[in-house]
Amino acid sequence: MRIAVVAPSCTLKPEAAAALRRIVEQRGDCELAIHPQCFLSSGHFAGPDEARLAALREVMADPSFDAVWFARGGYGSNRIADAALVELPEAARTKVYLGYSDAGFLHGGLHKAGLEVAWGPMPQDVVREGGEAAVTRALDWLVRRDPSTLEPALNGPAMAFNLTVLSNLLGTPLEPDFTGVDLLIEDVSEHLYRIDRTMFHVASSPAIRKVRQIRLGRVNDILPNDPDFGGSAADIVAHWCTRSGIAFGGAADIGHDAANRVVPFGRAG
Amino acid sequence: MRIAVVAPSCTLKPEAAAALRRIVEQRGDCELAIHPQCFLSSGHFAGPDEARLAALREVMADPSFDAVWFARGGYGSNRIADAALVELPEAARTKVYLGYSDAGFLHGGLHKAGLEVAWGPMPQDVVREGGEAAVTRALDWLVRRDPSTLEPALNGPAMAFNLTVLSNLLGTPLEPDFTGVDLLIEDVSEHLYRIDRTMFHVASSPAIRKVRQIRLGRVNDILPNDPDFGGSAADIVAHWCTRSGIAFGGAADIGHDAANRVVPFGRAG
Repeated sequence: MRIAVVAPSCTLKPEAAAALRRIVEQRGDCELAIHPQCFLSSGHFAGPDEARLAALREVMADPSFDAVWFARGGYGSNRIADAALVELPEAARTKVYLGYSDAGFLHGGLHKAGLEVAWGPMPQDVVREGGEAAVTRALDWLVRRDPSTLEPALNGPAMAFNLTVLSNLLGTPLEPDFTGVDLLIEDVSEHLYRIDRTMFHVASSPAIRKVRQIRLGRVNDILPNDPDFGGSAADIVAHWCTRSGIAFGGAADIGHDAANRVVPFGRAG
Repeated sequence: MRIAVVAPSCTLKPEAAAALRRIVEQRGDCELAIHPQCFLSSGHFAGPDEARLAALREVMADPSFDAVWFARGGYGSNRIADAALVELPEAARTKVYLGYSDAGFLHGGLHKAGLEVAWGPMPQDVVREGGEAAVTRALDWLVRRDPSTLEPALNGPAMAFNLTVLSNLLGTPLEPDFTGVDLLIEDVSEHLYRIDRTMFHVASSPAIRKVRQIRLGRVNDILPNDPDFGGSAADIVAHWCTRSGIAFGGAADIGHDAANRVVPFGRAG
């Protein structure tokens, strides 16, 4: 199993790359190619749009890679996602794409184009508290599709998105078909009034109303609401599901943390 | 001219109401009815959804009011906007609705329903530095349609929205028809990476691509981007306009500040 790491959003920390290389070496069951583009920096991004796109297209087109692992989130993959999907090389269809958070823009477009994508931990997660377990979970899934790495209640076709990313891809060419899927959402570093506003937007979408149900992962690092919002993130999601005729399926085991599980898109897992 | 003030979003500060009453008394050219609902508080909102909706529908249906002035922004008008538009009473069509920021959710729905709406300063603005001039500008427009209150470069049908609010109403039943309008946008208290992400979402919308042009008001109180984003808000808006085939018309004289001008929707002003 050969795994390419590229950074379509923000710059990978060198200490994360080093820690990941040590883990992969100890495992001995896969080979990691961390693209030099991961360490570029241009304003907010891991290099200019052109460099991030070129690295992504390079590894997509390389038949020697079995997987493309997005280095980290942050912001920026939406700026290159449409161009990444133009004239897809055949080799792009024979590999799996793993990541979460901002990578959701790519997940939407890649899944829509028929490619295999999954939500799951990313290389930069290794520097989190407990991060070795997170990247080990991702590698266990990539290398041997270990079922213990999966979100435990998957039951039929599923997708997972950061809620704010999902809101920003609705109505764009990156929007996939949500019909009949269990839609798992999570968020991080938002005020509850923003979660409410984003749920209004997402739940008002006719495309989203075609899901089988919505399940809520962790909403971490909630920013202080002034005044107190008057309800929890779960209350908010349940409220908008009820108003919108969407089934609310309760909690999901995903989030911006080391416990984040794997959610393969569009199938039972 | 009788003006009703209601608060579909957050609670009006009593000191703002008092200052506004003094200004209106001194003018002597209009009568202000600040609905008691403005001072309610329920979590984030100026009272529960039911109370905010009831107050709004009450003043919409009252033929003695010539104008409905939204007390302030914050967040929450989207939670009652669709219900406010159900079975519109005739008296709702003979008045004008003024506000900005979160009130954009109502503006979208009211304008779509054929009612007269305008972007402009709100009662709570009176407590800003220089705020007396802001509410005086709003009153001069409400009472005598003083042309000096208008955004100075209006030229044909226009609309104005807070960019983040606009992003969250796209694809919802509150989305108006943007065909051929000058779309004025502004924002406040956002990181530049969020402005970029929101512009991606907005500029990717086929509905938004029907505008005549986009003009950018002030983007105030920008939150620190880590690392530095690598461009200004104007750079970002110009970038996404260019990528999306939308004409970028430069600066607009609107924003979350005391200099904020009036933008009547859908006509030359």
